[in-house]
Amino acid sequence: MKEFYDLGDFSPEEIEALVTLAGRLQRYPEPRALEGKVLSLLFLSPSLRTLASFQAAMVRLGGGSFVISPDMSIHGLETRPGIVMDGTAAEHIREAVPVIAAYGDAMGIRAFAEGKSLDKEIADTEFNALRKLVNTPLINMESAIGHPCQSLADWKTLDDLQVPKQGGRFVLSWAYHPRALPLAVPSSTLQMAAMRGMDVTVLRPEGFELPPAIMDRATQAAAASGGSVRETDERAEALEGAHIIYAKSWASTRHYGDKLKDTELRRPLADWCVDDPWFETTDQDCRFMHCLPVRRGVVVSDQVLDGPRSVVIQEAQNRMYAQMAVLHALLGKRGL
Amino acid sequence: MKEFYDLGDFSPEEIEALVTLAGRLQRYPEPRALEGKVLSLLFLSPSLRTLASFQAAMVRLGGGSFVISPDMSIHGLETRPGIVMDGTAAEHIREAVPVIAAYGDAMGIRAFAEGKSLDKEIADTEFNALRKLVNTPLINMESAIGHPCQSLADWKTLDDLQVPKQGGRFVLSWAYHPRALPLAVPSSTLQMAAMRGMDVTVLRPEGFELPPAIMDRATQAAAASGGSVRETDERAEALEGAHIIYAKSWASTRHYGDKLKDTELRRPLADWCVDDPWFETTDQDCRFMHCLPVRRGVVVSDQVLDGPRSVVIQEAQNRMYAQMAVLHALLGKRGL
Amino acid sequence: MKEFYDLGDFSPEEIEALVTLAGRLQRYPEPRALEGKVLSLLFLSPSLRTLASFQAAMVRLGGGSFVISPDMSIHGLETRPGIVMDGTAAEHIREAVPVIAAYGDAMGIRAFAEGKSLDKEIADTEFNALRKLVNTPLINMESAIGHPCQSLADWKTLDDLQVPKQGGRFVLSWAYHPRALPLAVPSSTLQMAAMRGMDVTVLRPEGFELPPAIMDRATQAAAASGGSVRETDERAEALEGAHIIYAKSWASTRHYGDKLKDTELRRPLADWCVDDPWFETTDQDCRFMHCLPVRRGVVVSDQVLDGPRSVVIQEAQNRMYAQMAVLHALLGKRGL
Repeated sequence: MKEFYDLGDFSPEEIEALVTLAGRLQRYPEPRALEGKVLSLLFLSPSLRTLASFQAAMVRLGGGSFVISPDMSIHGLETRPGIVMDGTAAEHIREAVPVIAAYGDAMGIRAFAEGKSLDKEIADTEFNALRKLVNTPLINMESAIGHPCQSLADWKTLDDLQVPKQGGRFVLSWAYHPRALPLAVPSSTLQMAAMRGMDVTVLRPEGFELPPAIMDRATQAAAASGGSVRETDERAEALEGAHIIYAKSWASTRHYGDKLKDTELRRPLADWCVDDPWFETTDQDCRFMHCLPVRRGVVVSDQVLDGPRSVVIQEAQNRMYAQMAVLHALLGKRGL
Repeated sequence: MKEFYDLGDFSPEEIEALVTLAGRLQRYPEPRALEGKVLSLLFLSPSLRTLASFQAAMVRLGGGSFVISPDMSIHGLETRPGIVMDGTAAEHIREAVPVIAAYGDAMGIRAFAEGKSLDKEIADTEFNALRKLVNTPLINMESAIGHPCQSLADWKTLDDLQVPKQGGRFVLSWAYHPRALPLAVPSSTLQMAAMRGMDVTVLRPEGFELPPAIMDRATQAAAASGGSVRETDERAEALEGAHIIYAKSWASTRHYGDKLKDTELRRPLADWCVDDPWFETTDQDCRFMHCLPVRRGVVVSDQVLDGPRSVVIQEAQNRMYAQMAVLHALLGKRGL
Repeated sequence: MKEFYDLGDFSPEEIEALVTLAGRLQRYPEPRALEGKVLSLLFLSPSLRTLASFQAAMVRLGGGSFVISPDMSIHGLETRPGIVMDGTAAEHIREAVPVIAAYGDAMGIRAFAEGKSLDKEIADTEFNALRKLVNTPLINMESAIGHPCQSLADWKTLDDLQVPKQGGRFVLSWAYHPRALPLAVPSSTLQMAAMRGMDVTVLRPEGFELPPAIMDRATQAAAASGGSVRETDERAEALEGAHIIYAKSWASTRHYGDKLKDTELRRPLADWCVDDPWFETTDQDCRFMHCLPVRRGVVVSDQVLDGPRSVVIQEAQNRMYAQMAVLHALLGKRGL
């Protein structure tokens, strides 16, 4: 394994192998597997779970990491190509990224969406520009359009909970949020559930459709795995028999990059807050999932989040085990 | 051992065992004792010694740690229960704390006093609310009312210096400082010296009495250990024969939370700065102790701090060894 | 080895031994050489390469490190001696530095030049004041007048590239930059190339002469190693037959500390930007070197920096291997 950029780069069998490895490392620690190995961590956007879980993962495998973020340690980072650097920025990403990569055996990069052009996000333009500057194994710690570490962890969480693959009903539901958020998590989550062979419903209001490129890719993955993918704005019908409600807010795709129109469209949608009534017709063991951070009382009610259906802490903990598997596969002696 | 929250949760014998273990780890390093183990460090208040010494402690035992603080890595942390999070904070402490805990085998939390309600500080309300969110072994890295890591280190420093237990005279002296500081260090220091069986004098101006709950607890500990506890504002008499002058400033307890009245009360007290004359009637080997950071020329004179009586650097270094003992007891194979 | 403060403290043979050790650690990792060992890292000035490469170096040798910088973790650090600390600073460097040192087996300190007095920089006054406070082995991570880690890495890079020692032509060229930068890198680079036995030309405009004390020391080192040192402002003549163009900007030494006059002097010098024509009469394999960060289109053209002559990423990577050698020599069982 040379890179962990997108779940769709792997077969479902390869993902299963990573999830199995994650479970094995959880039960049988290997505190010397990566001794002397270094993970370079570059955060161009803020983080809590990713920051903590990757550092913890490397320690558990006997290696270590270092963290670079613009706020902490860089004088000002220029990203524009061909620029004459006579302003405040003292360093260009074209030097900074290869240098940071040169100190590690693998590198993780986080770089959020700009939120301006939908085409640019779907092409993952910024992340791919950074990717070209790295010679070591690279891990996508969340880009404009993907968050594969979250999705690998969520796959494991679904396995841990014995949620059915074939016939399992997975509802990815849009939720209200005061800001227009990126498509990375909904996009990766949809792909994950489809690859897992589940019947996936994307529940979202009009104007928040997931882009056709994302939907088509998931539909193909579902076809190959014996699952299905559909999109609807009919909440009652979508939730019937659901095994999972996975809540996430995202920007309006109809008005992508247009803050005013996005705000106008989402203003009347505050009732898209997952609450007890959402579970009235679901499977009785239906679980609530979210990638965190989550806004209480906005995306989900306190009752649901604090109740027995919520598995958000398990999901977060599985980030660490999933990433240990990725690191083991990228850097371990046996590879995967 | 499941938690290291307060010295008072342990018997003097248990504390002695930790101090002995600290000394053993200082002399005979165990660089694989905690291999693959992770300590989660959450700093809700700033730190230097604690930040550095816990990271160093884990490395020396073969494990590692990660640090999360609001400034570095969290988008804005909401603490109020039942709130609708439609403002700037993107994450609630109810998720953040269990998630951070989930990545570690043990967790350290620092959360300073609010400085408003004395009752709330004494009940350690904020720390105890966080404590309920953590399932792993927890270490108090300084809360509103306690700093047990400092006190464990100070106990070791006293032992290293062979300061007598029975009959040892320990003066905890209030000192001038421009700001109203928390009660955590004076409270823990008093308890430590009392548990160690020393004759403890709290020397402080009128209006800066330690709260009865703190004094009573220490008095009981002293009774059990063969020591004594008293409070006075008579400096000359307090210092006579002292083996230790432990300086620390704290807020006025008479006007707790009232900044104006506290300032008024402390304004004429600038002569509460430990200086050479303070040692005229002490034991000739009397040492100066302080938990650091310390304001030179305000809390203590340069002469005393730079002179042979001062053991402040040893105290700080013993933080690391004391914490190694705590971590070894919490996470090591043999436990304590 | 007790300290790594300046290349000039070592003989060329001792430097060669460190470079050889660096190469060995690069090829044959020793992931347990420093197990349980801690490196304290104090950054009083910002950093990327040094911050990352020292952390990575310690992990690769099986130890670890912690980082303290005023922005991250210190309440405000007082440096003035004899001051009454009744302002905002809560801690004095006289306590902070020994405490940070006390948690490590070795300590690295970075403290940039003030840019005011040339005599003070040459005497390295600030760093030497800090040095007196440290009892453990100390590493200069860049002081006002020296950057020996960079120079040790550059020596290795020159060896890796098989650049000749005797007869090798090394041009240290001043380059344009909007700000007046410290003398640390030019000073250490000059000393390094001279000690390596190369024929060194310092190419710089009038008013940017390197201080006589720096030139004299390098001249003596060159004499001992069979090399030579000279200074000129004649670019064409300087570059003829060069094996290395090492670009670096620095402050005007004629107007040191006078920002207005420095700006006036450098304003017409924007053509001191290393570009393809600079290589017309050099050795055909002539390489471009720079310590980074570098301003594109200001210090060097994109064509040169992105072209095959540039070895800046190798230089940065060799920082890690060079520092591993230093750490191994300071802290390893066998020493050097």
